[in-house]
Amino acid sequence: MSALRLCGGPAWKKLLSDVETVLLDCDGVLWLGNTDAIPGAKEAVSHLRALGKRLCFVTNNSSKSRDEYMAKFQKLGFDVNKSEIFPTGYIVGQYLKHTAGYDGKVYLMGVEGTKQEIEAIGCTCFGPGPDVLTGTLDDWLQMSFEKDVGAVVVAYDCHISYMKMIQACTYLKNPDCIFIATNEDPVLPSNGHIAIPGTGSMVSAVRTSAKRDPIIVGKPHTPMFDCIVKHTNLQPHKTLMIGDSLNTDILFGRRHGLKTLLVLSGNTKECNLEGLSSDKLPDYYADSIADLIS
Amino acid sequence: MSALRLCGGPAWKKLLSDVETVLLDCDGVLWLGNTDAIPGAKEAVSHLRALGKRLCFVTNNSSKSRDEYMAKFQKLGFDVNKSEIFPTGYIVGQYLKHTAGYDGKVYLMGVEGTKQEIEAIGCTCFGPGPDVLTGTLDDWLQMSFEKDVGAVVVAYDCHISYMKMIQACTYLKNPDCIFIATNEDPVLPSNGHIAIPGTGSMVSAVRTSAKRDPIIVGKPHTPMFDCIVKHTNLQPHKTLMIGDSLNTDILFGRRHGLKTLLVLSGNTKECNLEGLSSDKLPDYYADSIADLIS
Repeated sequence: MSALRLCGGPAWKKLLSDVETVLLDCDGVLWLGNTDAIPGAKEAVSHLRALGKRLCFVTNNSSKSRDEYMAKFQKLGFDVNKSEIFPTGYIVGQYLKHTAGYDGKVYLMGVEGTKQEIEAIGCTCFGPGPDVLTGTLDDWLQMSFEKDVGAVVVAYDCHISYMKMIQACTYLKNPDCIFIATNEDPVLPSNGHIAIPGTGSMVSAVRTSAKRDPIIVGKPHTPMFDCIVKHTNLQPHKTLMIGDSLNTDILFGRRHGLKTLLVLSGNTKECNLEGLSSDKLPDYYADSIADLIS
Repeated sequence: MSALRLCGGPAWKKLLSDVETVLLDCDGVLWLGNTDAIPGAKEAVSHLRALGKRLCFVTNNSSKSRDEYMAKFQKLGFDVNKSEIFPTGYIVGQYLKHTAGYDGKVYLMGVEGTKQEIEAIGCTCFGPGPDVLTGTLDDWLQMSFEKDVGAVVVAYDCHISYMKMIQACTYLKNPDCIFIATNEDPVLPSNGHIAIPGTGSMVSAVRTSAKRDPIIVGKPHTPMFDCIVKHTNLQPHKTLMIGDSLNTDILFGRRHGLKTLLVLSGNTKECNLEGLSSDKLPDYYADSIADLIS
């Protein structure tokens, strides 16, 4: 193992001395679930701000819009500005507008927060909420579908249903229909013995039956990075990515020339680092972002 | 293209002269959907029987038990015996009993018909039917789960829901829990512009979040073949597999030393054969099984 374990204030100080911008993942770094901040995370964020670092909150979680994230940050006591928050729902909207140049009709397998971000750039978006199974095969073969759906977005959707899968895959039979996924995270961060499927499971379900691969905008992919750079003009070598997932956060940092710090407060345990090739390891790791102020 | 197109009676007669056993896929070969047999399919089956061929109906479709398939065959006017029907639900039961030696508790993402086949070999099985979303992340993290679930089976389930995905993935966190999928067919056979997701989409959703690969019992995999051989003692080189899907039926036949005949009445069009390497091509192809009696 060649990742460096950060121990005590001096090690953090040395790392941060070269850093202007800090990108922070949220689930597993700042909080777990919806109710509790990770102990010390708020103080660590305040400390980074006091050090004059520019902060970006960079989350693959598409369950909320930027406005809803603001409310969550405030509820949990974090001091954050809306312009610092980059959830994948927002990135989808930015991608549709600036990269794809699309402002038409979008079918979304996802939640209201993602719909708000997609509509904010001028698209018409439908899909969120329950869409309960009705009928049988012979009925589904007679279903009617919306016209002119030029994009399908698959995001986190706990209301996943067969009716939604039929619609997503049918719209995607049109090869000109854009196919976007927010991310491929397999599970939500959780401690313990329960596996809560993440957006990756919804994306896999649709891509299998659509027989097409989506453009994935979230970490570790480049649309997320491009969007942050456009808004912040950050310099990669003076930027630190802090996250709890090797396959998203750390890979994202490595791919885009950032320094990387893994925290063990979410999806990854120290033993998961053993035996990894050096190209998969973070530069640094620590138990928690709270160690910054220890 | 080197697959041979069967034209007229003499070509069929020559092919069938060396064949003792005929394995027939069902959806896309004998029928499409639930209501109509493909024109001429009944007569073709009767003709094969009159020629003295042993018949096996070999379907990846896990939406029905053997008994339910018998009812469907009879409703559509096919002359079939129950012992000739090999749906994947039945293969799951046979695999659990004879290969895994398991007769404990099974969580099934699937329908009642598959449950019946699993219970027929002595297992306790739960899961079929609607399992509607309730609560939020914090509730799911407090969910209670059945004890001693030693196998998870993923089959066709139009009631797919997030609650089912959480359960399947959570039981599969136990590395001793057997993980079986009936098949990976991406879509149900249908003509036209609608894509109806198949079991492959449900399997992809669970395997992504469980981070495990299932044992797949259906075509093109070997558990299906082993089960048929055990029941029929067929000789592969004297057996013909007739199907409409290259990735399941034809690959299944090739892998297990059978002659292969693709029919164009379901999932595959003639243009799909162009440019395929010879190891993916069927030995023969025809518009429909009905051509046998033309």
